[in-house]
Amino acid sequence: MSAPFATVAIVGLGLIGSSIARAMRQSLADTTILGYDRNPEVCARARALGLCDAYHDAFGPELADAQLVILCVPVGAMADAAAAMAPHLHSNAIISDVGSCKASVLAALRSALPHATIVPAHPVAGTENSGPEAGFATLFKGRWCILTPEASGDAAAAERVAAFWQALGAEVETMDAAHHDLVLAVTSHLPHLIAYTIVGTASDLEGVTQSEVIKYSAGGFRDFTRIAASDPVMWRDVFLHNKDAVLEMLQRFSEDLSALQRAIRWDKGDELEALFTRTRTIRRSIIEQGQDDARPDFGRDHD
Amino acid sequence: MSAPFATVAIVGLGLIGSSIARAMRQSLADTTILGYDRNPEVCARARALGLCDAYHDAFGPELADAQLVILCVPVGAMADAAAAMAPHLHSNAIISDVGSCKASVLAALRSALPHATIVPAHPVAGTENSGPEAGFATLFKGRWCILTPEASGDAAAAERVAAFWQALGAEVETMDAAHHDLVLAVTSHLPHLIAYTIVGTASDLEGVTQSEVIKYSAGGFRDFTRIAASDPVMWRDVFLHNKDAVLEMLQRFSEDLSALQRAIRWDKGDELEALFTRTRTIRRSIIEQGQDDARPDFGRDHD
Repeated sequence: MSAPFATVAIVGLGLIGSSIARAMRQSLADTTILGYDRNPEVCARARALGLCDAYHDAFGPELADAQLVILCVPVGAMADAAAAMAPHLHSNAIISDVGSCKASVLAALRSALPHATIVPAHPVAGTENSGPEAGFATLFKGRWCILTPEASGDAAAAERVAAFWQALGAEVETMDAAHHDLVLAVTSHLPHLIAYTIVGTASDLEGVTQSEVIKYSAGGFRDFTRIAASDPVMWRDVFLHNKDAVLEMLQRFSEDLSALQRAIRWDKGDELEALFTRTRTIRRSIIEQGQDDARPDFGRDHD
Repeated sequence: MSAPFATVAIVGLGLIGSSIARAMRQSLADTTILGYDRNPEVCARARALGLCDAYHDAFGPELADAQLVILCVPVGAMADAAAAMAPHLHSNAIISDVGSCKASVLAALRSALPHATIVPAHPVAGTENSGPEAGFATLFKGRWCILTPEASGDAAAAERVAAFWQALGAEVETMDAAHHDLVLAVTSHLPHLIAYTIVGTASDLEGVTQSEVIKYSAGGFRDFTRIAASDPVMWRDVFLHNKDAVLEMLQRFSEDLSALQRAIRWDKGDELEALFTRTRTIRRSIIEQGQDDARPDFGRDHD
């Protein structure tokens, strides 16, 4: 199979952008990679790592070589990045992104690039680390990448973007942007919001010191600190740009939490046990479908 | 150093009990292990694994050989187990346990065994799996074991129990039971309650199918499913037996969550970013203190 694109521009060389570059070096070695980051220091670090074939801290005429441009910046920065690249894009270029919310990103890109071919994408993968050093080539392997093409969009372009992600090891699924935003509100945004909250709550107690919280974190708390260590700006933007779905999920979560609170207060052990038994089976399904490490404790090192 | 006890009885051969037995085989190989589980089928599985030197599904005169008896049963089952063992205990035996709440367990043990030497303990370690097959010898290595001896208790007995846990690789800390229960409410009980809640919320949606929740769980949700796969009876008991501290922490968490909800609704990006930046540093401290795997994504396998 020939590579879907001869030249790809990656805009934003953080965890995701640098992982795309690394995965391309392994699976699409003939493709030219143009690396962009508005922070010259990040460009220099990416260059030191040898991630791309060229590095730029601003868009210029070289961008016209790119057949695919992937925006890997926080969702709140998409509009400005798209506006800045507009004068330099080839008219046949496909514009894509990796943002965690799709309706707002599509609206921002469409507004900045009214005539462009846009295929929004979201690889559901990541770690708690940020920056070009944090990426790795297998990040997308076996993970889902969701495309949310416009109903009136260019089907052939969506197929090329799908082929690109499949080449990087991802499985591709297509859905509309609004449904994506609802699904990710529950599988990603609400979990992050709750993790950030509980880590904040735990660090603000009077009766328990922060050093105790850290010392005894292996009782469960440490699990939450991982995703609460994710990039602050990226996540600020996600919550603000997927506001309606996040608030809806948060409302449901709060209701369910109140019900459990009441069950504890009134010693309804049967209700607690019934829920706790039900939740156990979901873990099993996630492992069966290859979406988490089957080893206990995520495969943490116990030696 | 000589072994702190010649014969130890382990009551309850699940994840924790079987891990103690395995760790003893490695570090206290000369100590005789009496294994108890009221479920004969669990006894048979423990026997097949060769965990102990003897297996019993009820207490009998052999229990008098034990110098240390460790209760590894759900905290709601401690009172019955202590009452059942009472007639067979040696008068010099030290009674300990591994329960996740200490004030209620101490009260239950003290009531069933008014004259016994009791040294409550809580090794802050575990995985989401249950049963004798789930245990492993290094579970306690580098983890904290908290002792909560009575103020009027036998200091020498507490020292022997501390030496026992140190031999299994744990670090030992001592505090009073009420403080333990407050600390663990935030570092362990609240995280579990929240994980159970969000997994329940996610499985009860109309607009998003359960298969979508599973499929896209790598966005963060899967982290929560791990602790929400923990033993339902054990956790039912923990919440009911540490009710006051859990409800207090839950109230604080709910207030903090409401504040974030409001920040999202009113586009207070600065407030979100400030919290998300603060929580990042706690993760770093946990890793620096050896309480979590330093590798990104908990060291999950990405290949």
